[in-house]
Amino acid sequence: MTFKVGLLGLGTVGSGTAKILLDPAQRHPLIKELEIAKIGVRSLDKPRDIGLPQDRFTTDLDAIVTDPDIDIIVEVIGGLEPARNLMLKAIEHGKHVVTANKAAIALYSDELFTAAEQAGVYILLEAAVGGGIPVIEPLKQSLCANRILGITGIINGTTNYILTRMKNEGGDFADILADAQALGYAEADPTADVDGGDAADKIAILASLAYGGRIDRKQVHSEGIRAIAAADIAYADSLGFVIKLLAFAQRCASLPGEPQKLELRVHPTLVPLDHPLASVNGVNNAIFIEGDPVGKVMFFGPGAGSGPTASAVVADVLNIAALLQVEQVQSKQLQLEPNRDRPRSLDPLLACRHQHDCDIAPINETVTRFYLRLISSDRPGTLGFVGTCFGNHGVSLESIVQTHRQDGSAEIAVVTHDVQEGKFRQAMAELTAEGDRIRDVAAVIRVL
Amino acid sequence: MTFKVGLLGLGTVGSGTAKILLDPAQRHPLIKELEIAKIGVRSLDKPRDIGLPQDRFTTDLDAIVTDPDIDIIVEVIGGLEPARNLMLKAIEHGKHVVTANKAAIALYSDELFTAAEQAGVYILLEAAVGGGIPVIEPLKQSLCANRILGITGIINGTTNYILTRMKNEGGDFADILADAQALGYAEADPTADVDGGDAADKIAILASLAYGGRIDRKQVHSEGIRAIAAADIAYADSLGFVIKLLAFAQRCASLPGEPQKLELRVHPTLVPLDHPLASVNGVNNAIFIEGDPVGKVMFFGPGAGSGPTASAVVADVLNIAALLQVEQVQSKQLQLEPNRDRPRSLDPLLACRHQHDCDIAPINETVTRFYLRLISSDRPGTLGFVGTCFGNHGVSLESIVQTHRQDGSAEIAVVTHDVQEGKFRQAMAELTAEGDRIRDVAAVIRVL
Repeated sequence: MTFKVGLLGLGTVGSGTAKILLDPAQRHPLIKELEIAKIGVRSLDKPRDIGLPQDRFTTDLDAIVTDPDIDIIVEVIGGLEPARNLMLKAIEHGKHVVTANKAAIALYSDELFTAAEQAGVYILLEAAVGGGIPVIEPLKQSLCANRILGITGIINGTTNYILTRMKNEGGDFADILADAQALGYAEADPTADVDGGDAADKIAILASLAYGGRIDRKQVHSEGIRAIAAADIAYADSLGFVIKLLAFAQRCASLPGEPQKLELRVHPTLVPLDHPLASVNGVNNAIFIEGDPVGKVMFFGPGAGSGPTASAVVADVLNIAALLQVEQVQSKQLQLEPNRDRPRSLDPLLACRHQHDCDIAPINETVTRFYLRLISSDRPGTLGFVGTCFGNHGVSLESIVQTHRQDGSAEIAVVTHDVQEGKFRQAMAELTAEGDRIRDVAAVIRVL
Repeated sequence: MTFKVGLLGLGTVGSGTAKILLDPAQRHPLIKELEIAKIGVRSLDKPRDIGLPQDRFTTDLDAIVTDPDIDIIVEVIGGLEPARNLMLKAIEHGKHVVTANKAAIALYSDELFTAAEQAGVYILLEAAVGGGIPVIEPLKQSLCANRILGITGIINGTTNYILTRMKNEGGDFADILADAQALGYAEADPTADVDGGDAADKIAILASLAYGGRIDRKQVHSEGIRAIAAADIAYADSLGFVIKLLAFAQRCASLPGEPQKLELRVHPTLVPLDHPLASVNGVNNAIFIEGDPVGKVMFFGPGAGSGPTASAVVADVLNIAALLQVEQVQSKQLQLEPNRDRPRSLDPLLACRHQHDCDIAPINETVTRFYLRLISSDRPGTLGFVGTCFGNHGVSLESIVQTHRQDGSAEIAVVTHDVQEGKFRQAMAELTAEGDRIRDVAAVIRVL
């Protein structure tokens, strides 16, 4: 019983995927039942040394997703279009889809999953979050008995690499970004990574799975790491923290009768050094999940790269093939024509359930601690003024440190206790209204 | 479509399991399709406040595993018998089995999985290793595209708790064990935990899944933590290590044509402080897996306890229920009688594949670094003698430190480079043959 795979794209992830499928020794024996029937590429002229005959390659991607012989489509071309359109066409033609495309899934999940449900096919996407780290499937299956209280993740390798180097070397963001680009750890256009968009796509996907609802991607609050200064990393260190770009999805506290809201946000965060996420360095990713009754679990590993991402893609293909094999064995024993007179019924844990639209709380309702760094005039009463402004809005302070600078100004580093973001912003407005005391708000970073 | 669960045992894990099943709000909706049909307990007199009518309880466990109405048996009584016998009887009666019983699975896996394969039922055991941490299912499904190169785990919470406290408090093993027993972190009879047997059961299970073969549990080399002294923890710390009880399963390097062998061992280990396992403290567990092509991934979380373990048990029950639901929907659409004229076909990723007996390398073939602490007479030439003995057997030394003790003797702490265990033991024999120089070998601990 061979299952035929149509591979859309032969870039980093596509090549890694082909490499596993063509080298099954010492892997799960089911891999031997998979055949790469067609590979869709942009040009047939480029030499391909993956060991498949030339007639498997085509530039006609539409022909792959409509090919009646193909069971599973692997979409690893990335980007929004034509990926979305090809996935929809594949689904319409009764094919299961495996994708690593976080952007398309985050934006079009409603359309894609509705189509898949109607057609009775799976869309699996382990590779879309955390590269090779098993997290989507564990969330769907291994943790399915839990109420998910919250997910906190380092889910963008590029920014974690940059922040790790900034910390280790004491360097500035722009220099290290340029170096990361030269070394291939950051894209030529780093926007999606460094401004938080990629992490926002991924946390939207995780939240949708954890809370079983549709997430409006545009409502995910995201801030990137461009504004992080070497000074803040040094302050954080002296206060017992390390700065990480974290993505959060969590249930808000709600009163009985009130609708349940979710917090969804991506931003640089001061992480206490003894937190498991604090020691996740370089391009590694980690996803920390808190559930009732499991407690706190964490998944750690390489968040990107050809091999790790392909490991996740092929796992999804194998999971579908395993279910197809069960179906085929049964069809054969019942003497039914496979895939024809058999009704399609989906595993309710693997299929996506989107019963409702999740209600996302505005960022102003978020309760968190804040670190801020102020540049002030160095005159008596400034610390008192800062304390009073915060006190006026019910913001209590955990620590406050003032240092004098060579130019005659003072630098004040403050860590607040937990405060609702809206109240904090009011206090900040009061603090900066009187321009002659607080000259500059050099940094505002949330604290875990 | 309700699926009926027979629960064997209502201890810590059983109560946790019932609690989840009886409180489905905000969990996966499939939980609502599960019904606890019967609970097997030792005595009907004990008050049970889990909110089920009295007629669901019985002391007749045989009646549960043979009850034709029951689909899934949850075995959480633990121990070898009657657990083994009840599981076999349940399988014989066509019931799927979910168990947390690492000892019975490690010892009787061949018998149990063969019976399950013949009967066309699943035995799922996520709770048997790592408590609530998803690791069995990720290994079977999410990492199934990989060649597993090695697994290294902290998979016994009691010993990790004791070692963490010994490190933090500088205390001795016996005192902290006694305190852990008083606090409920260690059993009255702590043998299985502190002597490494529990971890050996678990690594045998993980190896069997990772390498798709049968493991002879008796061939798992295991050493416990009773001999770990406060002095060794202090030395380890000064050398940049922390001592953990690690379990290993890995492929040995083999020459072409030679049979592939596995290393399977449990022993205290000096772990470098920058390794992800070094910061896994208290009762937490973590499983570090290296695969080709995924690289290094780690799963971290609570390794025991009612809630975490029940989270894993219910996940397994839901995974089976999901597959049963697919089967039932299809049966209904085909107008077949469910579970009667339908052939049973198992998901090849979830079912256990045991095609061969794994070949386990003897511990003498293991290659690792060693830390050792010697008590010697304090006379000239002792360090040279130590170096010569090791050199005679091709053992090179990474570091050697000698300190003088108040009683006139000297203490020598040595860390070797990688060496085959057999050669190391020969060097040790030569070292101690001349009794007047080396008075005592106070510690020999392997180094990661």
